[in-house]
Amino acid sequence: MSAFRFQVLAQDWAARRGEIETPRGKIRTPAFMPVGTAATVKAMFLDHVREAGADIILGNTYHLMLRPGAERIAKLGGLHKFMGWQGPILTDSGGYQVMSLSKLRKIDEKGVTFSSHLDGTKFELTPERAVEIQNLLDADIVMQLDECIRLPAPDNEVERAMQLSLRWAERSKRAFEGAEPGRALFGIVQGGTLPKLREESARALVRIGFSGYAIGGLAVGEPQDVMLTTIEQAVPELPADKPRYLMGVGEPGDILAAVERGIDMFDCVLPTRAGRHALAYARFGKINLKNARHAEDAKPLDEQSQCPAARDYSRAYLHHLVKANEMLGAMLLTWANIAYYQELMQGIRDAISAGRLKDFAAETRENWKREAR
Amino acid sequence: MSAFRFQVLAQDWAARRGEIETPRGKIRTPAFMPVGTAATVKAMFLDHVREAGADIILGNTYHLMLRPGAERIAKLGGLHKFMGWQGPILTDSGGYQVMSLSKLRKIDEKGVTFSSHLDGTKFELTPERAVEIQNLLDADIVMQLDECIRLPAPDNEVERAMQLSLRWAERSKRAFEGAEPGRALFGIVQGGTLPKLREESARALVRIGFSGYAIGGLAVGEPQDVMLTTIEQAVPELPADKPRYLMGVGEPGDILAAVERGIDMFDCVLPTRAGRHALAYARFGKINLKNARHAEDAKPLDEQSQCPAARDYSRAYLHHLVKANEMLGAMLLTWANIAYYQELMQGIRDAISAGRLKDFAAETRENWKREAR
Repeated sequence: MSAFRFQVLAQDWAARRGEIETPRGKIRTPAFMPVGTAATVKAMFLDHVREAGADIILGNTYHLMLRPGAERIAKLGGLHKFMGWQGPILTDSGGYQVMSLSKLRKIDEKGVTFSSHLDGTKFELTPERAVEIQNLLDADIVMQLDECIRLPAPDNEVERAMQLSLRWAERSKRAFEGAEPGRALFGIVQGGTLPKLREESARALVRIGFSGYAIGGLAVGEPQDVMLTTIEQAVPELPADKPRYLMGVGEPGDILAAVERGIDMFDCVLPTRAGRHALAYARFGKINLKNARHAEDAKPLDEQSQCPAARDYSRAYLHHLVKANEMLGAMLLTWANIAYYQELMQGIRDAISAGRLKDFAAETRENWKREAR
Repeated sequence: MSAFRFQVLAQDWAARRGEIETPRGKIRTPAFMPVGTAATVKAMFLDHVREAGADIILGNTYHLMLRPGAERIAKLGGLHKFMGWQGPILTDSGGYQVMSLSKLRKIDEKGVTFSSHLDGTKFELTPERAVEIQNLLDADIVMQLDECIRLPAPDNEVERAMQLSLRWAERSKRAFEGAEPGRALFGIVQGGTLPKLREESARALVRIGFSGYAIGGLAVGEPQDVMLTTIEQAVPELPADKPRYLMGVGEPGDILAAVERGIDMFDCVLPTRAGRHALAYARFGKINLKNARHAEDAKPLDEQSQCPAARDYSRAYLHHLVKANEMLGAMLLTWANIAYYQELMQGIRDAISAGRLKDFAAETRENWKREAR
């Protein structure tokens, strides 16, 4: 079985075009990972996710440990077999969802105990258990458990959580020893929007040593410029030969700006969630299909798209499906959104290879304004 | 443009293997028509409907006249273009849904007035308007407006509704004159479960003359043997060289029994509705995926199925999707159900051609008992 390997194939200012090799296949970077929360990329067939150009998807430890359970998925042959996805899967550690979804949390040095938002069952998640669960799921990229605090928070709270996350990073590294070859563990930079803390977090993680580094705790409501400044401060501390992953981001504009600052990997529920709420992401900007102005519009979302959902159905039809609350509306819009995100990533990768990312970014941002006119 | 044409290719006792030619393609009979209520076969991509073996789908006049409106669909190029289905479409006349869904109905000789169940808007549906709407939708097979009364009802009520439906049949025929060539109009036999009324209705319709004949007002809760007896009484009154369509039926067992009695066409929401409610129809019987006994079952619904949804996903995964209320659960089960219904129809057609329908029916009924064991 081949090893986990990352190489930078081209660079354009800070942006990198790269490739991650895993035993389950290559991941072209910059990459957008569609989110497959509960062992399904919501409202999509995985054939379409793959055809849209996704090399890797993300699974959520929190959701899967609650239902159907990590041990059960392991018994059924792992997450890939369970859901029918042959390519690589990255799983998060559950930390973020424990904070945002569960009830009755208690955090201490050891880990976090919480009650399931589904039925109140009590669970314990430690750095060691988070790694164990992800190994049971058969994840190709495993994330360390971290504490994600809500921002804004007092500086000393942000620092405490960052330091705890660092100690958990060390324990995660130890727990990951002996994992199957080819599997990778990523550390997560924390520290809120405080440059000194982000720097300290990044340096300490690099000393521990991971196969990749994520920037966590962003895209939680802060302004875009604050997010970008934080990225700019963290990236130089991270090794150039390891992938950099900005967790939970985001809008196409955020992704483009983060790529320009050296980020290689992204995930976000936005394209799938928006698809279930009548919002299309397309080449010429966002389109709200609920809007009555589409009721007799025979144009598709984008007649030049390679995606059947974006190319072969009129806005009038999509509007009708949305108004009638038909599942097919969510199915088509999710598909079109995932396809647009992948088209964007392909455009970004090609532009970096050609050394013209700045031009591509300017054209793309100009295009996004057109639907609003 | 070619004409509407039906021919019987083989006969096995009362059962017929046939073919309907329409300008939009052939329909192999006996045929099951998936129901595309509001211009979508719920939770399905039409590619999969087609690949499953469906030659024709059904659209609902009632739903479409309310939203998005027949004139709007006509403006957008007709129902085929609107929803992306190239094959033939049969539309019902709206009569059944007016009775079952709308509020504040008033029926008189002229037609029916009712309020939309969506927003209370008042609509009038006459035999002439029902034909007009279906022509606007660009339906390939148009159904006459009939009055569907709820059973049980007093005999004189059943007779009154049947006689009214006959007068509406005449008006429908006149309204249909001058419709595009290749388009067909079907009459609907009414008369509840009273043999004399069914016979009278069928004979009168044949005198008026239609391209096909439906049996309406069945599968509304009566026992199967009552339904089958009624079919047996009506079929001999109908011309052998026209297709016979049993509306709204049904369970696979009902379809098989009706084919044995000379029925050529079926439609029913059952496979799609069941798919959205965790119920799979498969070769070895019905499977309720909500049941906890499937939680760790690695078997698919049917490993020999040609349908990816039935063949490539474990029952454990389907159970998980259903429990998690994931849209993919409905998508996969609906697909599997439509595929099973089409597989059944193909089996029926092959058996009739081979003159072995009785054996096929016996084997099939035996198979259906297996999941329950």
